[in-house]
Amino acid sequence: MKRFWAEHPELADWLERVRQEILERAASEEGPVPASVRRLVDSNGKMLRPAFVLLAASFGRPDAQKIRRLAAAVEMLHMATLVHDDIIDEALVRRGIRTLHALSGSRAAVLIGDWLFAGAFSLVAEYADGEAARGLARLVSRLCASEIRQSADRYSVNPSIRRYLRTIAGKTALLFSLSFYVGARESGCEPGVSHTLRRLGYSLGMGFQIIDDILDFEGTDCETGKPTGSDLAQGVFTLPVVLGLRADDGALGAALAAPPYAPDAISRIVKLITALGGLDAARRAARAYTERSQREIARLPDTEARQTLLVVTEKLLHRTY
Amino acid sequence: MKRFWAEHPELADWLERVRQEILERAASEEGPVPASVRRLVDSNGKMLRPAFVLLAASFGRPDAQKIRRLAAAVEMLHMATLVHDDIIDEALVRRGIRTLHALSGSRAAVLIGDWLFAGAFSLVAEYADGEAARGLARLVSRLCASEIRQSADRYSVNPSIRRYLRTIAGKTALLFSLSFYVGARESGCEPGVSHTLRRLGYSLGMGFQIIDDILDFEGTDCETGKPTGSDLAQGVFTLPVVLGLRADDGALGAALAAPPYAPDAISRIVKLITALGGLDAARRAARAYTERSQREIARLPDTEARQTLLVVTEKLLHRTY
Repeated sequence: MKRFWAEHPELADWLERVRQEILERAASEEGPVPASVRRLVDSNGKMLRPAFVLLAASFGRPDAQKIRRLAAAVEMLHMATLVHDDIIDEALVRRGIRTLHALSGSRAAVLIGDWLFAGAFSLVAEYADGEAARGLARLVSRLCASEIRQSADRYSVNPSIRRYLRTIAGKTALLFSLSFYVGARESGCEPGVSHTLRRLGYSLGMGFQIIDDILDFEGTDCETGKPTGSDLAQGVFTLPVVLGLRADDGALGAALAAPPYAPDAISRIVKLITALGGLDAARRAARAYTERSQREIARLPDTEARQTLLVVTEKLLHRTY
Repeated sequence: MKRFWAEHPELADWLERVRQEILERAASEEGPVPASVRRLVDSNGKMLRPAFVLLAASFGRPDAQKIRRLAAAVEMLHMATLVHDDIIDEALVRRGIRTLHALSGSRAAVLIGDWLFAGAFSLVAEYADGEAARGLARLVSRLCASEIRQSADRYSVNPSIRRYLRTIAGKTALLFSLSFYVGARESGCEPGVSHTLRRLGYSLGMGFQIIDDILDFEGTDCETGKPTGSDLAQGVFTLPVVLGLRADDGALGAALAAPPYAPDAISRIVKLITALGGLDAARRAARAYTERSQREIARLPDTEARQTLLVVTEKLLHRTY
């Protein structure tokens, strides 16, 4: 977290307080909850979603404590999905450290994920208005539906761009969007500004997820903390695959039609996708979402937060982790 | 469901409509959600919790549609915990049919459980007031904490009655209690009646779970749908074990100290517990909670619903499934 926000020390300090908020919630439980949540919080990446809540809130008149708690809620929701994803993917490593699932088994991972879900709902039900609570609940339904769809679509021989975009919208863009919207709305932003921020969150989330999916092909263990080609190995065909297939003369389709993929098959498929321009085309798509985000940002009042959003948007496009 | 409510055909019809409500929610999703939820709904047991919502609501002026949806919410929440429990217990059979976990793997089970959680929160956020939403979220936190505690306590050589009671309160009695309270409150019952119903739910839930734990020692596969001694096999020491240990001269303690238990060790332990009076003592505890429930029922206005509650309370004590 500190690495990504190095140039924004005040924001980094504030995110540290959000972490403390989550740890305090966990500390009030007995048994293994506090230690497990601490492990998760210590590996919790960039904390983009809570940062978005705060940045959006700064366009209104934020109540500091309330905004910090809502930021904790969106981060807890995100953490819950990561913990449950690791069971689903049978992932042993995330962000370079062993997953809760690998460490304590699916028993602990299911329960800690449920506890985080419930904690997020509690915070929102307690500190936000009814619409935010309904928005969060609907979002989690769509998030699950997206994951279920992605799971059902695995190894699909005919993946479509539209289906991919719908899946990543449910998986990532909607929570980005809600983070901005909750921050804006709960700080009494003007409706026009709130809606611009909501759209910004959506396009930022779409671009973010496409980059994430590209990094899964390019990243090394130590940078993304995940093994290269891990989506592919699970039969999840992301945008580089879908776009590679569009230029395919049959070799890629044939290679994908024979799962499970051994490590040498994975590297052959990655080479094919690269040669077919799948990665470049996906990068262009991410660039287009980034430009859309920049157009939304340009509509916002000229504040320090707007400047930060511009920097962050560009940084997310060029990130390698 | 029909078997348990055979003498209350109107209530059974109404519960059928609650099932339809859940199925309709699922039908609006694509992919494997509708079929998985149908499977769960088809094996959904007695539907006690939605019945409690309705019975409690009848002491006020219920809005039929709202009450049906809140009843669907508590049932979905309960279904979510069952699905996730099956992953935790690695259960292959529940209520005599193969679990979702056994059938479709933990991937599907995690996601369907999450979808049900989110659906329950959605319904409550949409149709109940803020306090009900907060109550539900807090309850799920406590429910998870109880399950986590139970999980951490497995094979504990020194189980305590107090800890057991706290665990089953979080696991069962609080949701029973909330089901009554939500029904009463959302139908504008008088505060005194609402609180009596809430306490009734609590003692009914405690008695219910103790009986459930006794049945795990006595039941046969075809009656409970679970193998005998399954809690024991998982290292979960329920009330008959705790009370058996209090009368133990060392033999039970020694047998329990050597997990994992082979099938013949399980039958030896069950025989020891029976001989030490653990099952009889647990049955007396369930009886005491039932009597407490009856005292709460006696405080309620004299209506048809009160009569039904009396019958149901007695029936739950003597059930064999």
